Amino acid sequence: MMQEEYPPLRPPARLLLGPGPSMVAPRVYQALAQPIVGHLDPYFFEVAEEVRKLLGYVFSTNNAFNLAISGTGSSGMEAAVANFAEPGRKFAVLVNGFFCERITEMARRQGAEVVRLEKPWGEVFDEQEAREFIRREKPRVVAYVQAETSAGAFQPGKAICEAAHEVDAVVIADCVTSLGGMPVLVDETGIDIAYSCSQKGLSCPPGLAPVTVSPRALERLRTRPAPPHSWYLDLQLLDTYYSGRKYHHTASATMLYALREALVLIREEGIEKRWDRHRRNHQAFVAGIEAMGLRMHVAEGRRLWTLNTPRVPEGVDDAKVRKRLLEEDGIEIAGGFGPLAGKVFRIGLMGASSTPENVLLILEKLERALRAEGFRPTESGRSAAEQALGAAAR
Amino acid sequence: MMQEEYPPLRPPARLLLGPGPSMVAPRVYQALAQPIVGHLDPYFFEVAEEVRKLLGYVFSTNNAFNLAISGTGSSGMEAAVANFAEPGRKFAVLVNGFFCERITEMARRQGAEVVRLEKPWGEVFDEQEAREFIRREKPRVVAYVQAETSAGAFQPGKAICEAAHEVDAVVIADCVTSLGGMPVLVDETGIDIAYSCSQKGLSCPPGLAPVTVSPRALERLRTRPAPPHSWYLDLQLLDTYYSGRKYHHTASATMLYALREALVLIREEGIEKRWDRHRRNHQAFVAGIEAMGLRMHVAEGRRLWTLNTPRVPEGVDDAKVRKRLLEEDGIEIAGGFGPLAGKVFRIGLMGASSTPENVLLILEKLERALRAEGFRPTESGRSAAEQALGAAAR
Repeated sequence: MMQEEYPPLRPPARLLLGPGPSMVAPRVYQALAQPIVGHLDPYFFEVAEEVRKLLGYVFSTNNAFNLAISGTGSSGMEAAVANFAEPGRKFAVLVNGFFCERITEMARRQGAEVVRLEKPWGEVFDEQEAREFIRREKPRVVAYVQAETSAGAFQPGKAICEAAHEVDAVVIADCVTSLGGMPVLVDETGIDIAYSCSQKGLSCPPGLAPVTVSPRALERLRTRPAPPHSWYLDLQLLDTYYSGRKYHHTASATMLYALREALVLIREEGIEKRWDRHRRNHQAFVAGIEAMGLRMHVAEGRRLWTLNTPRVPEGVDDAKVRKRLLEEDGIEIAGGFGPLAGKVFRIGLMGASSTPENVLLILEKLERALRAEGFRPTESGRSAAEQALGAAAR
Repeated sequence: MMQEEYPPLRPPARLLLGPGPSMVAPRVYQALAQPIVGHLDPYFFEVAEEVRKLLGYVFSTNNAFNLAISGTGSSGMEAAVANFAEPGRKFAVLVNGFFCERITEMARRQGAEVVRLEKPWGEVFDEQEAREFIRREKPRVVAYVQAETSAGAFQPGKAICEAAHEVDAVVIADCVTSLGGMPVLVDETGIDIAYSCSQKGLSCPPGLAPVTVSPRALERLRTRPAPPHSWYLDLQLLDTYYSGRKYHHTASATMLYALREALVLIREEGIEKRWDRHRRNHQAFVAGIEAMGLRMHVAEGRRLWTLNTPRVPEGVDDAKVRKRLLEEDGIEIAGGFGPLAGKVFRIGLMGASSTPENVLLILEKLERALRAEGFRPTESGRSAAEQALGAAAR
């Protein structure tokens, strides 16, 4: 009787080309099914130490403090904000998309005085305006989103970090959609606190939030006048757990195995080669999109390689296109929201999902779905992408 | 070269008889390896709806608000505290163990005025003293730990809830070590907010925190003067996500599959039968412990069936015993901490770990390890447990 009420799990086989989760490699699925050990087992800390080193590799940092928080990417954001926001003190946010709004909301909930510099979604801040803003406001913290998942733009951070350090601020960078797919370059950029998620460029299931913290940011934590409101996300307590092996919470060996395996796959591929792969597939996708007569929302040179935001053609209902792709082809892509609702598609080519085959497939299926909604493409997107991929391979 | 640096994962095969994680059933491992879907996929919400219903079943509640927070059990505690604590207002805690101290710390970090009634670890509050405390303090929130993982005692909650409701307080109960192994009985007890974890009585890997919230507690949330400091754990936002299918964070289909499967296993076994199984195995374990000449730390009738706290015999170094069990037998048990450091063992018989075979095995191996440390048992614990199990089976 019970078997009838709750039949065996039979998830549909989706091709995940949205803003995350991305496809999970077979070796990562195998890791999930490995026998569990306790959160204080010597083997647990061996794996945690591997993860610490491998996170340094993908973040391109020499920081000693790299760990995976037991929560999703948004818990990484909350950890960054909750540990560095201080009640009544200035917390600056460069706002050019949805996740900058989320940082704002979190910082306000922590009692910080939030000051903002704003741009339309999909644009990025130039060096001059970022510097002027930071020098004028002299905040304690500067937060920006390196890879805006809502809009598809990459925000360079070097000038932001330089200006922030001039006024003795620490810099938080949201790397949720860049890590593992584009150069995050924590040390070279000067980022103090970077956080990400497991399920996009790393191609691990959701559930962990990789975080790295610079020595100067750690010093800031040590001199905080009061502990953060959050105990669960208190970075100093987490550091004591992972480095001191003192119980804090019951971290998941299962999820840690999966993340470790996903990171080892990156190490085996080589991070630079992985970035190249993402860039090539992104460029081929863009060639296909433009050949069809669609336009990219973000200017060339500012685009994420991991998440593409082609504009929805005039007169086309994006929800119908997405529904068709999901129901007829089993492909997940996403739409825009906020000011971009109905205006862009969000198509992810991240981690294991970033392959030439997926570029060709999504262009073909997208074209078919757009035609069904009355749109007439100029040329075949698939052919243009094939040419671009061929040229890149030569 | 990379393969040498990072060899394949080869976790040791542990028998997990500590305070969690417990052993994971093969069907749950299989669920983890099912193809992932997105956090807004229709299939994701089908599984979430099954989880909602099944959590109502294991919590014994008719609440509509049942969900699994994307974090470990401690994130469930923080969600309960952060959503119901109010700055400057009274938050009462009944303190008889480590996790009551943690609730205290979290409530203080939220700015609440914490008032406490204290007992030694391992004892429980009687109805009269709990009532007097609550009537005197008239707090906004009363928190207690139903199953104290640090000490091994079960705290009945009916009088606490009645007194709390008289003064219009909501009641938070920590059910981390009771859910799935002992009667939690949310509705019958009158608990307003109960939270737990996935990795103890439910025998799923760590990573999710089941929570249930009563209608009166939801009403309290709706009339909160300001949102909680935590955005990630904001229960109203989580409710909007799970019931309204509006994006909040990227919940993990993988972990949800595993929890769903663990809960279906409980449904198939039957929750009352499962409680009986835990009780029988616990009683057999206690018979064995007492036959050996050891004593239980908690008085009879107050003990958890899931987590046993036999006292460490005089002159025995508990760390050496635990090390021997781990290294020679691959068995994880835990020691005490705080005032119980060195004084008790903490031996879990929860979920898939609660079997007659494990009772006999741990008694045999514990006896051997204690002998190696110079302790001489009165009689064989294993034989006494065999008799108890035989009697229970008749």
